[in-house]
Amino acid sequence: MRKIEHLGIAVNNLEEANELYTKLLGVEPYKQESVEREGVTTSFFKVGESKIELLEASNPESPIAKFLEKRGQGIHHIAYAVDDIKAEMKRLQDEGFVLLSDEPKPGADGKVVVFLHPKSSGGVLVELCMDQDEYEA
Amino acid sequence: MRKIEHLGIAVNNLEEANELYTKLLGVEPYKQESVEREGVTTSFFKVGESKIELLEASNPESPIAKFLEKRGQGIHHIAYAVDDIKAEMKRLQDEGFVLLSDEPKPGADGKVVVFLHPKSSGGVLVELCMDQDEYEA
Repeated sequence: MRKIEHLGIAVNNLEEANELYTKLLGVEPYKQESVEREGVTTSFFKVGESKIELLEASNPESPIAKFLEKRGQGIHHIAYAVDDIKAEMKRLQDEGFVLLSDEPKPGADGKVVVFLHPKSSGGVLVELCMDQDEYEA
Repeated sequence: MRKIEHLGIAVNNLEEANELYTKLLGVEPYKQESVEREGVTTSFFKVGESKIELLEASNPESPIAKFLEKRGQGIHHIAYAVDDIKAEMKRLQDEGFVLLSDEPKPGADGKVVVFLHPKSSGGVLVELCMDQDEYEA
């Protein structure tokens, strides 16, 4: 894994959370984006080489809505940047990790992504991500 | 906040978790350390400019033991590196965040640290940390 690309944090209300995180981190969000397929509206803050991604559910069936219902606001996933997502998927499967999709899927912020099942990764939802441009090159 | 210094992840068994994270991250832990005052045994992995800190409870009264009992294995806190911990404590208190101690305390891996109450920081336990050497200089 090259670096922590971002941390995904589930929030009840994106507008209020944007204000809170602007105070906490001392910077404004640089981007807001909806990922309809995933049922989320997101905003992004830069911290060093990583990002904080706030996640608000955009419908009641969203995985984020279910997470919030069960656990309340908090850290939802860790995303690691990888150089070659297909090679990394193969390597991790060979090590016994369970992937939640067979192919990388489009994610927020210009990435292709794949998730690992938290049961295979010590209770943590892990995302691998790679720039879509690099993936398609 | 200068960067994500580390992510603290609560685990049931440090030895097993070290094996899992060595496979996941593709690197071995660079350090293992007990912080008796906090009731934890920790190990550290480098990922880019950040670290993953695995946390095992060293006694049943440890905050990590309580976290594991309540929520199971998973992400316990986010630690941000700051340049001047006292100035940052003052700034955050003025913004309405609640600190869990009045003074920075010695943490693992040569740091002084302070935590923010998760109720004031959107459900996330936030740690600020600074190198002890720099703090004492």
